[in-house]
Amino acid sequence: MTPRPVTLGDLPIRDDLRGRSPYGAPQIDVPVRLNTNENPYPPSPALVADLAGAVGRDAASLNRYPDRDALALRGDLAAYLGHGLAVDQVWAANGSNEVLQQILQAFGGHGRSALGFEPSYSMHPIITTGVSTRWIPGSREEDFGVDPGKAVAAIEEHRPDIVFLTSPNNPTGTALPLGVIEGLVQAAPGMVVVDEAYFEFARTGTPSALSLLPGNPRLIVTRTMSKAFAMAGTRVGYLAADPAVVEALLLVRLPYHLSTLTQMAARVALAHRAELLGTVDRLRAERDDCVAWLRGRGLTVADSDANFVMFGRFADRRAVWEALLARGVLIREVGPPEWLRVSIGTTGEMAAFREAMTDALAASPVITTPGGSGRDDLEGIL
Amino acid sequence: MTPRPVTLGDLPIRDDLRGRSPYGAPQIDVPVRLNTNENPYPPSPALVADLAGAVGRDAASLNRYPDRDALALRGDLAAYLGHGLAVDQVWAANGSNEVLQQILQAFGGHGRSALGFEPSYSMHPIITTGVSTRWIPGSREEDFGVDPGKAVAAIEEHRPDIVFLTSPNNPTGTALPLGVIEGLVQAAPGMVVVDEAYFEFARTGTPSALSLLPGNPRLIVTRTMSKAFAMAGTRVGYLAADPAVVEALLLVRLPYHLSTLTQMAARVALAHRAELLGTVDRLRAERDDCVAWLRGRGLTVADSDANFVMFGRFADRRAVWEALLARGVLIREVGPPEWLRVSIGTTGEMAAFREAMTDALAASPVITTPGGSGRDDLEGIL
Repeated sequence: MTPRPVTLGDLPIRDDLRGRSPYGAPQIDVPVRLNTNENPYPPSPALVADLAGAVGRDAASLNRYPDRDALALRGDLAAYLGHGLAVDQVWAANGSNEVLQQILQAFGGHGRSALGFEPSYSMHPIITTGVSTRWIPGSREEDFGVDPGKAVAAIEEHRPDIVFLTSPNNPTGTALPLGVIEGLVQAAPGMVVVDEAYFEFARTGTPSALSLLPGNPRLIVTRTMSKAFAMAGTRVGYLAADPAVVEALLLVRLPYHLSTLTQMAARVALAHRAELLGTVDRLRAERDDCVAWLRGRGLTVADSDANFVMFGRFADRRAVWEALLARGVLIREVGPPEWLRVSIGTTGEMAAFREAMTDALAASPVITTPGGSGRDDLEGIL
Repeated sequence: MTPRPVTLGDLPIRDDLRGRSPYGAPQIDVPVRLNTNENPYPPSPALVADLAGAVGRDAASLNRYPDRDALALRGDLAAYLGHGLAVDQVWAANGSNEVLQQILQAFGGHGRSALGFEPSYSMHPIITTGVSTRWIPGSREEDFGVDPGKAVAAIEEHRPDIVFLTSPNNPTGTALPLGVIEGLVQAAPGMVVVDEAYFEFARTGTPSALSLLPGNPRLIVTRTMSKAFAMAGTRVGYLAADPAVVEALLLVRLPYHLSTLTQMAARVALAHRAELLGTVDRLRAERDDCVAWLRGRGLTVADSDANFVMFGRFADRRAVWEALLARGVLIREVGPPEWLRVSIGTTGEMAAFREAMTDALAASPVITTPGGSGRDDLEGIL
């Protein structure tokens, strides 16, 4: 008799994990991948050659641990960010997910709480509860913005130890005005994390929360090299904050968390930043074209300051998602129930998306306000 | 008037972090670094060339996220470990520190506890408390082994959710007999983690806890590529366990935690394992020579199955550590108060260590039992 295989339910996992499914967009091999907000432009042959050269030069020291504090990389990141930032105000880790987890470990934990305004990046609550911190779901308005008065009221009611503000927001694309962020930093009793993963894609003139750092030691601005820098495979996230915040993170970071190769690749990418960030303008133009095209089809589209667009509203979004997938175009089923999100790809990929959408729309019922700006009343429908 | 700089104490960090200092061996640039149990042999030019070639081949996809589940790497690791292990029984992360943290996140957390037998790897309690899990310090015997009867009693008294067994143990070098591990797996009410970071250095005939995996779904065996594989800079730790354990870790791992470059470099290193593990025999021979030499100087030395040796006992170990450092030899001030730990280096580095030790011993008072085996009674002295 073969013994019954052990299942997850047989193991003494934490009670709040029981019945959960792993996070993650499906990794499906299709011709047009517009599902994880990657930058579609691969690094140039010159950048790849520089990376290979750097490995050839530095790999002979791989038997040694990396610089535990990644000082050279942090210095390069500070120089990139500008705003007068110095190396001791910048921290880096394996993707902004790890940066966020370290923030939660330092300032959250059991008996503490974090508040975010949903819909937003779904990893914020997952990382929060993963380190035994209570998640408080606040809400965004019909236009996916944050209402300052209601947000201050939520902060005063719940007194969260950490407030998450995502700007531009994922999955909606919405950037927050600086005045709103400033008001919430004043109102918050603890730390405020402004997740600016998509900042480089914001429309011209959108200010960064980095400009609020002086005098606000409880403010943290996080960024990533996965999106604008086209380095999703390298896994580098980073933050800027008061030097005391970086000191706090040193207490919880796993020693040698950032490999020699990661530090090296990130520095090579920063040295090539003119090339990498050169793709950002093309993606912004494609994004604006995509928004206009979708609105022209009668769909409701959220204003976007990111490299993706959220659109709807579909009585059966899964049917639309599947229809696109059947045509080789993978987008993301994420956000409020009647919406879908498409990452901005190359000109050719976006043409394929439009073609597939034209077919899909012919088959699928759409619930929408024609020409909708994304600011129409959600409450009546959702 | 310049405002007073913000200090860590001004920030709302978690209460249990207040007053703590960051973990870490000093990273000092000296000629002979014998302080972090690195493998002193750098990768060969052939391996470096293969790494650079792999980067040249694969870096054009760095704009895309890595394989979130690292299947190819896990398959290679399963093949390396043998014992009939399959890809779904192996998991990998950024160093065994991250592997351990994920285990704690899945099976520990607030209201849960982990027990380890000290002195042992100092990151076990740090990682445990870092995810709000209570640490229960058990103790080792005078010979730094674990007494099965006392250990079972400690497990029955505390009912820990996780038991850590380090074999070979860091910083003492002590390997545990398989029967002891088996008995503790039977006694433990929750998960048992056998940390085998140094297993490849164990003396011939030492069995791995991997052989206990069949029928023991609550057993986890962790390993690393940092030591025997001479890949500390690449940051790859891994584990073998029941497939259900891997499923549990999928619930808590940060998505895309392991970069494309890390997965690639680890696979290249595994392909070169004959070369890399070829250094292990040389290090074992150096280690045995080091133990014999230290005992010949009248010092007490713990038996070692690792690539380091713990020796003492010094009335003022700091003076000895400083005397060695002044002679360009960096070792580690770690473990019980009267002991020091030296990592095994190249033949030339060990000669430098012996020379520096000869000088240092001439100056520093030693508390020891001449010819001590490491099994003499600590309690009377410490």
